[in-house]
Amino acid sequence: MNNFTFYNPVKILFGKGQISAIAQEIPAGSRVMITYGGGSIKKNGVYDQVMEALRDYEVLEFQGIEPNPHYETLMQAVDIAKRKQVDFFLAVGGGSVIDGTKFIVAAVEYEGADPWNILAKRERVTKAAPFGAVLTLPATGSEMNSGAVVTRVSTKEKLSFGSPFTFPKFSVLDPETTFTLPKRQISNGVVDAFSHVLEQYLTYPVNSPLQDRMAEAVLLTLKEEGPKAVQNPQDYNTMANFMWAATMALNGVIRVGVPTDWATHYIAHELTALHGIDHARTLAVVFPALLRYKSEDKKEKLLQYGERVWGVDRGTEDERIEATIQATIAFFESLEVQTKLRNYEVGQDTIDTIIRRFEERGVKDLGERADIQIEDVKQILMLSL
Amino acid sequence: MNNFTFYNPVKILFGKGQISAIAQEIPAGSRVMITYGGGSIKKNGVYDQVMEALRDYEVLEFQGIEPNPHYETLMQAVDIAKRKQVDFFLAVGGGSVIDGTKFIVAAVEYEGADPWNILAKRERVTKAAPFGAVLTLPATGSEMNSGAVVTRVSTKEKLSFGSPFTFPKFSVLDPETTFTLPKRQISNGVVDAFSHVLEQYLTYPVNSPLQDRMAEAVLLTLKEEGPKAVQNPQDYNTMANFMWAATMALNGVIRVGVPTDWATHYIAHELTALHGIDHARTLAVVFPALLRYKSEDKKEKLLQYGERVWGVDRGTEDERIEATIQATIAFFESLEVQTKLRNYEVGQDTIDTIIRRFEERGVKDLGERADIQIEDVKQILMLSL
Repeated sequence: MNNFTFYNPVKILFGKGQISAIAQEIPAGSRVMITYGGGSIKKNGVYDQVMEALRDYEVLEFQGIEPNPHYETLMQAVDIAKRKQVDFFLAVGGGSVIDGTKFIVAAVEYEGADPWNILAKRERVTKAAPFGAVLTLPATGSEMNSGAVVTRVSTKEKLSFGSPFTFPKFSVLDPETTFTLPKRQISNGVVDAFSHVLEQYLTYPVNSPLQDRMAEAVLLTLKEEGPKAVQNPQDYNTMANFMWAATMALNGVIRVGVPTDWATHYIAHELTALHGIDHARTLAVVFPALLRYKSEDKKEKLLQYGERVWGVDRGTEDERIEATIQATIAFFESLEVQTKLRNYEVGQDTIDTIIRRFEERGVKDLGERADIQIEDVKQILMLSL
Repeated sequence: MNNFTFYNPVKILFGKGQISAIAQEIPAGSRVMITYGGGSIKKNGVYDQVMEALRDYEVLEFQGIEPNPHYETLMQAVDIAKRKQVDFFLAVGGGSVIDGTKFIVAAVEYEGADPWNILAKRERVTKAAPFGAVLTLPATGSEMNSGAVVTRVSTKEKLSFGSPFTFPKFSVLDPETTFTLPKRQISNGVVDAFSHVLEQYLTYPVNSPLQDRMAEAVLLTLKEEGPKAVQNPQDYNTMANFMWAATMALNGVIRVGVPTDWATHYIAHELTALHGIDHARTLAVVFPALLRYKSEDKKEKLLQYGERVWGVDRGTEDERIEATIQATIAFFESLEVQTKLRNYEVGQDTIDTIIRRFEERGVKDLGERADIQIEDVKQILMLSL
């Protein structure tokens, strides 16, 4: 096992009715800015529950944080929050709203030359305004970690940052808030969470049996509960299990002491940045290709994953690895998430564009062994055509 | 799944060499009291590493916190810490030293009539001095939770308390600090951690597949790594896996949203209080008897536990449950931890004493269904004779 530091101070309030508890978590007298997306929370009752819980606070609203939150939009919120002297932020929505709010709370307190540098130059965040979250879409895990991804529309860049100061103070996970989700968002969420686990698990063995089994626990839960969630999103226990699995997939517990990959995410972000394809769908395209391309390096873990998650225990090693990748593809496609670039009308020209952008940005050394170079990225994308 | 709140802000510094990192976690200029036990840390190099890491601090030492830490001893530390105006405490040792230090930091800041009331009357702790821990014995999980158990020698009482203010700020888990542990302490640690999981897992189903699999992940790790740890305590990876499993067994992750039992602990504490039997050994005595006595109420989870942890998948339900309890007993005994009261020269008279003490204390409604009455405790203890 590798050395590690683990720290996650997010307080989770899980279950039906928990939105009413948020007032106990926000300092009395705070001026609160609630941030949200396109307004679905006004249709499903979540907005009303939040406003009722905040009835003793002065509340400002910032609406319109889009999927893959835009830097340009977030900076508008920063401007308003500074002028209105907001004390506390409350993100109400899915991962994009929460990610966007992480950037807002960091940028509000930023004292450097240009807040874009938090993303572009990875300038260290040294303080941030406090915030909480009410999660309405299980997927990204942002509700219980300190990382965020922000897109700059003007330059089509999708970049990430993280800081010990950008953990939510609390997150409410009420499965009932997910009952009205479109099927597409649920299936995306399952694939996203599943991919998060694979990034932290399908690397190489370092003698970490507990972390391996914990990762497999999340994968098996998503395998079993994910399809049920898509079919029946009003079943409380199904949505509760899916919601908690998506959170556990990326709160740091399964990552401790093991190598992580994240090359798939890095490559897939380009497809969203260039074509606006749903994040989960870009992962479903890149992951199978990357697993095939790196199957020799990932052999031990692929065999273990195949056996413990998909019951693949017969045939030669090569056959078992192929069957395991096929099972992963079949799982994604059973959720109506397609796994080839051509399904999204993306072709060779996009691959060329990504490679050129990576060359310009100086990308190299991706993956758990830091051995994926730009030429490898090209091969992986060719395999996903 | 049940509603839950999860909060665990302990920073974990895991791995070889991590003791040197503690100075970054303690405010500069603090007057630090290090608390420890019988002095084994002076023989295995841990004391020297700690003092080297704290070379820029003013350090006081409080030695002599015993196994099942004594209220009387801890109050001496409280007295010294108050007089010397200690700012920060550092527990260096196993669960007893860490538990004892939790009581010290709460009692130092206590403003009520009698700090014993924190334990005896469960008076709420509203503040506590900050502390960290350097763990040298994987077992209790105290390094990553806020609970503690303290024994009052004069009245032979062993009582617990907990508070959001008594989480360690950080805990160092360096597997190399365990290399010189006596075999008996390692086997006790395995049984203790294993029992912690069983208390949170062997109850009744609430549709929580992820929590179940996470609990099973810890059990399987302890099943595989525990015997290896006893045999070869200088194998780094074995001790690392055992150490992390013992921490994960009681840091709250596997408990979220599920019922918990804890009757075994409550009953077993009496055996330590009255006879000084090692904590883990008292658990190994009471647990099998309690499982037999409550096998009907725990049927579904016992069958699942048997199948997933011990591979028991044949026979009638009754046969499988009996085989599962037998496998648990065999596991404990394979670690040279005996499972009957008679092995510890305890007989009927002790059962009578415990029942009388429970009657005096007004104990009732133990277990996950709050249905274990004093008469049931008697039956359980009779089964363990």
